[in-house]
Amino acid sequence: MTAPLFTRVAIVGFGLIGSSIARCVAEYPGLAGDVVCIDRSQAVCDRVMELGLAATASPDPALAATADLVVLATPIGAFADLGAVICPHLKPGTILTDVGSVKQSVLRDIGPHVPEGVHFIPGHPLAGTEHSGPDAGFAALFKNRWCILTPPPGANPDAVEKLAAFWRGCGSQLEMMEPGHHDRVLAITSHLPHLIAYTIVGTATDLEDHLKSEVIRFSASGFRDFTRIAASDPVMWRDIFLNNREAVLEVIQRFTEDLTALQRAIRWGEGEKLEELFTRTRAIRRSIIDARQA
Amino acid sequence: MTAPLFTRVAIVGFGLIGSSIARCVAEYPGLAGDVVCIDRSQAVCDRVMELGLAATASPDPALAATADLVVLATPIGAFADLGAVICPHLKPGTILTDVGSVKQSVLRDIGPHVPEGVHFIPGHPLAGTEHSGPDAGFAALFKNRWCILTPPPGANPDAVEKLAAFWRGCGSQLEMMEPGHHDRVLAITSHLPHLIAYTIVGTATDLEDHLKSEVIRFSASGFRDFTRIAASDPVMWRDIFLNNREAVLEVIQRFTEDLTALQRAIRWGEGEKLEELFTRTRAIRRSIIDARQA
Repeated sequence: MTAPLFTRVAIVGFGLIGSSIARCVAEYPGLAGDVVCIDRSQAVCDRVMELGLAATASPDPALAATADLVVLATPIGAFADLGAVICPHLKPGTILTDVGSVKQSVLRDIGPHVPEGVHFIPGHPLAGTEHSGPDAGFAALFKNRWCILTPPPGANPDAVEKLAAFWRGCGSQLEMMEPGHHDRVLAITSHLPHLIAYTIVGTATDLEDHLKSEVIRFSASGFRDFTRIAASDPVMWRDIFLNNREAVLEVIQRFTEDLTALQRAIRWGEGEKLEELFTRTRAIRRSIIDARQA
Repeated sequence: MTAPLFTRVAIVGFGLIGSSIARCVAEYPGLAGDVVCIDRSQAVCDRVMELGLAATASPDPALAATADLVVLATPIGAFADLGAVICPHLKPGTILTDVGSVKQSVLRDIGPHVPEGVHFIPGHPLAGTEHSGPDAGFAALFKNRWCILTPPPGANPDAVEKLAAFWRGCGSQLEMMEPGHHDRVLAITSHLPHLIAYTIVGTATDLEDHLKSEVIRFSASGFRDFTRIAASDPVMWRDIFLNNREAVLEVIQRFTEDLTALQRAIRWGEGEKLEELFTRTRAIRRSIIDARQA
């Protein structure tokens, strides 16, 4: 039997993503010897042990010293503080990564704390559900989903390949990207859709009570699809918008211009304009089906 | 064996909804003796006969004279012309209904053409997919979905009940509503979500080609859910927006105000505002799950 890729994985923040990684290690052979949980919530640590997801679980950041792979899986707003308390414990040769949805801010917040000899390789598995917490994870979460790594210039190629092999072992398809480009692509594919979903569901919650109950009752006609997205973790998403501010504001601006043009077309009865756009968007759906992402 | 509810159903416009109704008649006993297809496209008529979905199929509106239930299932923009050509053929006692997503405009466009003795009872099954045409239909489309009827004041109660029984036989849950109220509720539950989805997908199609291919590739992170909605029939949706203009413009206005407030919160780093909204929208999702509409 060959040795696993890593001796011990320390997962910092044991929510949906963190607990899914732990389940991958348990279910797929060759990834890691064991998993330890570092979570500031003692209740989460207790639950992780109850679920049998880690060899040990503690709020103590010193536990990171025992691992050769450390995965930061908290909301990204915690990263600056986390970097300061976790990094001093890391031993040389350790790979430090994260699963955050914004990559430039991770470099900014964690980068300065990384000790000499530790390989810092930020990452982002494009996977999730609207559920949170250690009970919500499952090993198949990453299966056939993208995982984007954004290694800094000069990153150790062996360390990058080892981390990529870990994610492939979790079922992911790997992609390397420059962090600024990642943040622009995700602003349109993920952050704007979530912001719009939050907005539209918020607009509905402000309706008069009578109308609101009807909206819930008849939600299957389109609205429902948005509520699933708008049920995603509030703190995680707050941090994403605050940390990808420039790219998100830029796509909101484009979106608003386009919505205003449509609004005007509706007001002035410009049917051809509407039909032309709606025909164009149908073609995009076909491209996604062709790219086997549907 | 008891007689079916209707002797013959004439379906005018044989797309996703029309052909699904025909499949219900074929699969569920007691709904109707047979179905005839009236469609202005000879190609659609030929396909309907090939699929065995109707006893006869023709572009000739006079075929409606042989039916005791006539269902208008074209895009609603065709209704004013359709009313003028179909209505003169209807025999007294016939029930005339439709499946349009806007109900005030149907009254306006069809109402004046309805002959004495014909029971005009507009309807709207809240069901659909992003696919179109006679091949796209299936009998289970209406199963456990709402069907809203908006009978005009003074409508014959027996005729309303008979039409309701037909829809219940197709698997629908029935609801009676005032047409203006229907149009306001649907503007928020269906029309706004579709408009937003069309806009966001349109915004992405305008990106530089390089970025666009990445958006398609990484669409699973949220964007994809919108493209399904934005692949719905372009002509049908053009007509919905043009015919529910007031209610749609009113909800766009509310939505834009809310989006602008969020945009400002992001710009100024107001994390509490974001988190508060995202927590509220999560609760709405729970209401929908509790109402068993998820």
